[in-house]
Amino acid sequence: MAMKTPHTLLLCLSWLLILVFITCVSATRGRRLGVVDRRITREKNKVDNDAAYFKTFFHAQTLDHFNYRPESYTTFQHRYVINFKHWGGANSSAPIFVWLGEESPLDGDISPSLLDNIAPRFKALVLYIEHRYYGKSIPFGSRKEAFQNASTLGYFSSSQALADYAEVIIGVKKNLSAEASPVIVFGGSYGGELATWFRLKYPHVAYGALASSAPILYFDNITPEDGYYSVVTKSFRESSENCYNTIRQVWSKIDKIASNAEGLKFLSHKFKTCQPLNESSQLKEYLDSLYTGAAQYNSPAESPVSLICRAIDEASKGTTDILSRVFAGVVAYHGNKSSCTSINEFNTTDESTQGWAWQTCSEMAMPIARGTSKESMFPAETFNFTSFIEDCKNKYGVSPRIHWITTEFGGHDIKRVLKRFGSNIIFSNGLSDPYSSGGVLKSLSPTLIAVHTKQGSHCLDLGPSSPKDPKWLVQQRAKETKIIAGWLSKYYIELAAKV
Amino acid sequence: MAMKTPHTLLLCLSWLLILVFITCVSATRGRRLGVVDRRITREKNKVDNDAAYFKTFFHAQTLDHFNYRPESYTTFQHRYVINFKHWGGANSSAPIFVWLGEESPLDGDISPSLLDNIAPRFKALVLYIEHRYYGKSIPFGSRKEAFQNASTLGYFSSSQALADYAEVIIGVKKNLSAEASPVIVFGGSYGGELATWFRLKYPHVAYGALASSAPILYFDNITPEDGYYSVVTKSFRESSENCYNTIRQVWSKIDKIASNAEGLKFLSHKFKTCQPLNESSQLKEYLDSLYTGAAQYNSPAESPVSLICRAIDEASKGTTDILSRVFAGVVAYHGNKSSCTSINEFNTTDESTQGWAWQTCSEMAMPIARGTSKESMFPAETFNFTSFIEDCKNKYGVSPRIHWITTEFGGHDIKRVLKRFGSNIIFSNGLSDPYSSGGVLKSLSPTLIAVHTKQGSHCLDLGPSSPKDPKWLVQQRAKETKIIAGWLSKYYIELAAKV
Repeated sequence: MAMKTPHTLLLCLSWLLILVFITCVSATRGRRLGVVDRRITREKNKVDNDAAYFKTFFHAQTLDHFNYRPESYTTFQHRYVINFKHWGGANSSAPIFVWLGEESPLDGDISPSLLDNIAPRFKALVLYIEHRYYGKSIPFGSRKEAFQNASTLGYFSSSQALADYAEVIIGVKKNLSAEASPVIVFGGSYGGELATWFRLKYPHVAYGALASSAPILYFDNITPEDGYYSVVTKSFRESSENCYNTIRQVWSKIDKIASNAEGLKFLSHKFKTCQPLNESSQLKEYLDSLYTGAAQYNSPAESPVSLICRAIDEASKGTTDILSRVFAGVVAYHGNKSSCTSINEFNTTDESTQGWAWQTCSEMAMPIARGTSKESMFPAETFNFTSFIEDCKNKYGVSPRIHWITTEFGGHDIKRVLKRFGSNIIFSNGLSDPYSSGGVLKSLSPTLIAVHTKQGSHCLDLGPSSPKDPKWLVQQRAKETKIIAGWLSKYYIELAAKV
Repeated sequence: MAMKTPHTLLLCLSWLLILVFITCVSATRGRRLGVVDRRITREKNKVDNDAAYFKTFFHAQTLDHFNYRPESYTTFQHRYVINFKHWGGANSSAPIFVWLGEESPLDGDISPSLLDNIAPRFKALVLYIEHRYYGKSIPFGSRKEAFQNASTLGYFSSSQALADYAEVIIGVKKNLSAEASPVIVFGGSYGGELATWFRLKYPHVAYGALASSAPILYFDNITPEDGYYSVVTKSFRESSENCYNTIRQVWSKIDKIASNAEGLKFLSHKFKTCQPLNESSQLKEYLDSLYTGAAQYNSPAESPVSLICRAIDEASKGTTDILSRVFAGVVAYHGNKSSCTSINEFNTTDESTQGWAWQTCSEMAMPIARGTSKESMFPAETFNFTSFIEDCKNKYGVSPRIHWITTEFGGHDIKRVLKRFGSNIIFSNGLSDPYSSGGVLKSLSPTLIAVHTKQGSHCLDLGPSSPKDPKWLVQQRAKETKIIAGWLSKYYIELAAKV
């Protein structure tokens, strides 16, 4: 497979980043999920979440917390939702569990999750806060205005979002006279990064954090750029050596065929694409997304990696044709439900995609390269910062601040830095999740605890319990809950002692 | 003494805040100091600070770190100065001591100080960084442009300054290939607040902080509003009961006389004012500043409180006239050097005053009330937030965010919050300093250590050693140095062990 042009690579990477980030809560269904799947998840579990207990509020949020220009004082309606069902009340200083919204509308977050499952035990209030520039929390009156250009998008940053969360939490506690209630923040993926950073920057607001699948080390070359794809490769190889080898060969095969006259027509036919292919990169990007998504959301219940590999292995018995084998995997992934292959299936253009595109081009620049290790299942493509920056400039007129995240939040030498600083963070990961390569996998101190499972996928622990859950997942959640219980018990001892 | 109008009170308070904040390093001379006195201090000690070792640099600093509008990317020349004299070099990972600039030009900070005294022992590089909007670190090309209105002043905030410091330190370390060198930050008064917050927010940049006389709890009603004036009262009362009683009575005496025809003329004559008084508040504010300044900078070498009180007590033997006694104190304070009393002596309009006026009106709003306790030496004046806000609005067109400092940096329940979070901060205070009322006077944890002396004044420990130093001051500095040595030794052990 020939090197993609830098431009295509960038699109591909940013598109990948968007996709893999958006769906944490619903991730438990074992797929790369969109809005529809979230809705289904909620539908299925609506008994658990009686709407009557959920109340939606709006906070007059400050546009710019760190600046005092007159325009910075402008406010926008910032959405948050409270589930009062389980709360023990302010009198008993019952805790507040806060879901820190990620790069998506809050609606999708209010599906059953670990928070709901453990809230009754702790008599916790559950507070969900939307991330600015998503859902209904849009400055400048409308999405159209807010996303007009860098002048209106400029206020869309992680630091502003963290300060938003601080304002909302302090405000809610005040409104409920719950100043003495301890706050534990939860988040997954980008939301998990925010949860980590929130505990580190606002220890006076959050007493602890559960950061699930938070690749806080995937910045500024702390993590090898190929980390993400290495895990994908490993997942497939562990599932089947034949499967791995088949996929590994498909890229050059596609290129070779595409270089022939009628090659694209042949590929379109072979993969039953709903529309004819215009270039081979469409097919390759589709397969890339399919495999990375399968690895990222490789849930134990219905492992998409196994599904694909089993089909490829089965097909391998009858044919030596690589394309047919790979296509068998595609069909299996879709459960034989589609009459044609929708090659643009993963090219979503929803508001998460749109928002995250800005976020990566401003500060959340994670350098993910592909296939740079010899063993990789993927063709090699380095991450080219120069063209990435150029692309962002063309798109928004401003450059990404590629060192900002580590300047503001750290990451380098994290063990040495945090060994004697900070406390009460759980870094949870599933090693089957490609993003775990940028996560904290070893405890940094007795209270900065890494909890990981070998089989776990992206944000799996944050999902709701199910009778089908494997033992290791049940144990992981129990361990996390026990740690949180330990924090809270210390908190209440000190509260009673009036420390 | 009649209540001042809210407007006058505000001016008085903000003016007081400005005055008491600006002069930390030179504070050791025991006076409320201005630029001239700094210069004298440096002159006296210039042998210690060979100019050849000091180099001035400018960093292209980002105007707004937390915002991505195109304008935010503008850079300005940010000044910092390095003293290379004592540095052991990058190869030995010798430490970097960083002076975090406060609300004044950096020139005044590069006078002899604790940093210079201890740098040779640790072979430390000493880095002084100016605070944005002071000295030569002015955005928008000129002070005139930068201070034009809230639109240009809006970028002038503590959070931006902290991010500036992070950028400069990371940049300097990179330039010197000194990434492994531990950084200890130092600061006094507002600079001490910044040092505290910097360690809390940027633990990956600073390994420890010495925060001298940092009233981080003088926000949002954590500290009783009368705290500052209570300490002033205490200092005078401890010096002499008669002195305290005399001053306590002078305010109503002044009001009474001023209410008579020719009263102001009489007071002008009595206090030998250089210009005739226009209103009695001028005299009262002058005396207020004189007493608060004397208490704040009540250095052991030449205690201005004792000086004033001895003169008042001496005069009391010969006269029952309160005004004459009080005037004797004024004369003694000035060392009989002036032929007339310069009533506007403390009404400085230098750039510290100008900058701090903006900072209090944007976020650094410390509610200092006066004389609200029964025992106070001062007439009662509450802190009126409503009129304070109104005043700021009139002045700059924007409102102070009066809860922002505690939202962003905490302060409430600090013991409970930081008992299990953070490390490596020394909170040093002198209990004779009125600002110690808003300081951390009890250790929060084994590594968040309060060090205070009964007799110490504002930022006294940060000054240079002198043979005249009392034993307790020598001991305080030795204790602080030992704590820092302990941090560094742990750091090097972990560095060697490649933690």
